[in-house]
Amino acid sequence: MPNPTAAMLVIGDEILSGRTRDANMHYLAQELTKQGIDLKEVRMVSDDATAIEQAVRALSDRFDHVFTSGGIGPTHDDITADCIARAFGASIDVRADARALLERHYENSGLELNAARLRMARIPEGATLIDNPVSTAPGFTLGNVHVMAGIPTIFQAMVASVLPKLTGGDPLLSQTLRINRGEGDIASTLSALAEDYPELAIGSYPFQVNGVFGSNVVVRGTNGSQVDAATTRLAKELEL
Amino acid sequence: MPNPTAAMLVIGDEILSGRTRDANMHYLAQELTKQGIDLKEVRMVSDDATAIEQAVRALSDRFDHVFTSGGIGPTHDDITADCIARAFGASIDVRADARALLERHYENSGLELNAARLRMARIPEGATLIDNPVSTAPGFTLGNVHVMAGIPTIFQAMVASVLPKLTGGDPLLSQTLRINRGEGDIASTLSALAEDYPELAIGSYPFQVNGVFGSNVVVRGTNGSQVDAATTRLAKELEL
Repeated sequence: MPNPTAAMLVIGDEILSGRTRDANMHYLAQELTKQGIDLKEVRMVSDDATAIEQAVRALSDRFDHVFTSGGIGPTHDDITADCIARAFGASIDVRADARALLERHYENSGLELNAARLRMARIPEGATLIDNPVSTAPGFTLGNVHVMAGIPTIFQAMVASVLPKLTGGDPLLSQTLRINRGEGDIASTLSALAEDYPELAIGSYPFQVNGVFGSNVVVRGTNGSQVDAATTRLAKELEL
Repeated sequence: MPNPTAAMLVIGDEILSGRTRDANMHYLAQELTKQGIDLKEVRMVSDDATAIEQAVRALSDRFDHVFTSGGIGPTHDDITADCIARAFGASIDVRADARALLERHYENSGLELNAARLRMARIPEGATLIDNPVSTAPGFTLGNVHVMAGIPTIFQAMVASVLPKLTGGDPLLSQTLRINRGEGDIASTLSALAEDYPELAIGSYPFQVNGVFGSNVVVRGTNGSQVDAATTRLAKELEL
């Protein structure tokens, strides 16, 4: 059975303007790979309602899971929850369960649960809350879309509470050979190997260090002995 | 007149598996912002022909420019050039001008221009070559799509040769206020400011450092005195 598939949607002007470097995509990619869920596509869009809705719909239709980051705070540019609700045709309002979480949190912290903060309790009808152990305001899962915060510490905590609930596939195993020769010298060897092992993904990731070209060749698959055999053959053929 | 728009397509399994952290998106985002070209969407897809073709078509239709990175080397998993050709219905083969560049380069370096390396001279009909001062094998522009290498040093060199040829818009100016208060405390002030300055983008990017929450508020626009006025008013209202 093929592994479940996933997409990620990163929401935020700050990423697209180059002001902030996204950190969540790389984190999620690694966690999904460990769990045997194949991340197939990532999209990054700005804080624009139409762009968010269209992307959510497109990704939700095509993949088993969609993970979003960003845009669920208390300020005027936090529009993700409303966009997700619209994408699914669900109603949205301040929900009692989320409100209760925030009330308790702000009572303990001595801060006021004002109108802005209360926006963080806007949760679409039918959604399940995602726990936020860092700052309480919850994420949520609606359909196959998991909506999480953009702040990396909170994003990571939310991923940690969502992923164990999902059915993973066979974890992807990989072995890497670092080859200090240009890709052009090893291409025919790689190509023959890829033909002989159609179930493995054999990728060549070139690098350039101090003017010298080389490549990391990564052999990936879910069958450990196949991965071993292909890597051993490659090392032998390239006389590593 | 609104600024030209752009999208980026990052191609490569190594990014989606979490093995490599993409560096090109952040670089391109900063360069486009300087030039007054608005990066509106980024997509990352794996080395999959259908995924690449569909993404190229969708982005090329919707934005003024599309920049791709990755998948133009000599190995079997380098399929970008062929996918771009198919997306545009253009024929593709080893082209004399690209071949001549490679012949000269490999003659000088004493390396063999073998069949694998010659694949890097496969350029769609009608495309213009993009100079590669680092390792010679060219990128190309076909229609509104600029196809560039994934290795960051080469990607950056190619961006440097493409961008000056594009018509930019008004550079986006921005000012940032770092505010050591939770977003919930400043949200209503920001919201009122955003209403009074509809031409500016006012973004709030929360952070959490040592358990303390704060936010970087960024005021962006192409009119410098408006950006100044809004930032000054915000600082005053928040008593910074």
